[in-house]
Amino acid sequence: MAKPVLYTYYRSSCSWRVRIALAWKGIEYESRFVNLGKDGGQQNKDEYAAINPMKQVPALVMNGSTMTQSVAMLEYLEEVHPEKLILPKDPLDRVKVRELVSVISGGIQPLQNSSVLQKIGDEGKMEWGKFWLDKGFQALEQTLKRTAGKYCVGDTVTMADVCLVPQVFNANRFKVEMEQFPVIARLNGELLKLDAFRESHPFKMDDCPENLRS
Amino acid sequence: MAKPVLYTYYRSSCSWRVRIALAWKGIEYESRFVNLGKDGGQQNKDEYAAINPMKQVPALVMNGSTMTQSVAMLEYLEEVHPEKLILPKDPLDRVKVRELVSVISGGIQPLQNSSVLQKIGDEGKMEWGKFWLDKGFQALEQTLKRTAGKYCVGDTVTMADVCLVPQVFNANRFKVEMEQFPVIARLNGELLKLDAFRESHPFKMDDCPENLRS
Repeated sequence: MAKPVLYTYYRSSCSWRVRIALAWKGIEYESRFVNLGKDGGQQNKDEYAAINPMKQVPALVMNGSTMTQSVAMLEYLEEVHPEKLILPKDPLDRVKVRELVSVISGGIQPLQNSSVLQKIGDEGKMEWGKFWLDKGFQALEQTLKRTAGKYCVGDTVTMADVCLVPQVFNANRFKVEMEQFPVIARLNGELLKLDAFRESHPFKMDDCPENLRS
Repeated sequence: MAKPVLYTYYRSSCSWRVRIALAWKGIEYESRFVNLGKDGGQQNKDEYAAINPMKQVPALVMNGSTMTQSVAMLEYLEEVHPEKLILPKDPLDRVKVRELVSVISGGIQPLQNSSVLQKIGDEGKMEWGKFWLDKGFQALEQTLKRTAGKYCVGDTVTMADVCLVPQVFNANRFKVEMEQFPVIARLNGELLKLDAFRESHPFKMDDCPENLRS
């Protein structure tokens, strides 16, 4: 089988989720960079829309199939690469993980999507993004108080962690004051000590502008 | 074990997803009605926020646990009630189903959430809701052309169908012209012939206003 190909953009939080999971599970892949800020957004070109009709990154070509939603990809990787699992065994623990994943992927991230920010317009977009991140993080903080150990759910890395770290990165872009969210901040710091999270960081990516590279 | 309790609102599309899955799997439950339109939204009261910090319906109390995100509930019900499965066996088919679920639950529905509409304001909210439904349904229609048989993915009912029908109901509220989306319209019609979808319909619910009941 050919190596998986990931269509990605360095600072897309949904792309970073998949980069973390691939790194965590030790799956080698090739990157194809889609620049959301160039030429009116390379994701809007016909060539890319044929790959993902939602005109969003990431897309993952793997085992002869093209996949287009990051959470679906995480579930798929978990099923076909059961090494270093990112879902617990117990169904009641799994539901806790998936709840956190949904709060982030369905409740918070969609409102800072580049197409949504474009519709809001340059003038209002920072306030808009921050408003929904603040609101979402308040709820997330409450939930994490009940579920967190060393990581989001207990002491092992799960899909919830894979989604949390890129969301905090987004929150920094929107200047969310993280002191309001001590649990989220602690978890984020803990997770960024792990290789899979560090190596897949936006600022380590080859498509990251030079001045941001670290 | 006590009967599951579902906190629900008749026209909440996320609540309807869970009502369909419970009906499909033949799981009996009690309903507690949370009126999103009354008293400034009953979901915003402290009593309900203690159940779900996101202040959203549905919430499901089951097997001693309180669950708060509809997609996480669908996955949970699938794991603990494997009668009448709503995910296919093959991982590449499962990813197709979960992609459609994500497109709806992460790409379309969050933008017509009652809190988002409130932020947009009364004047702009119909245009806003319709804009994102049109955009999302265009992408969904393209994807469904590749995956649909009698239902969203092949010829058996899946989580994608469970999410599609409530989203079309929402689209009707926002006056989306469904003739633009023949595949979605056909699937919706087909699915509404099934008991689990018909019996859980918003207009059949006890908390539906009398003038809408059917």
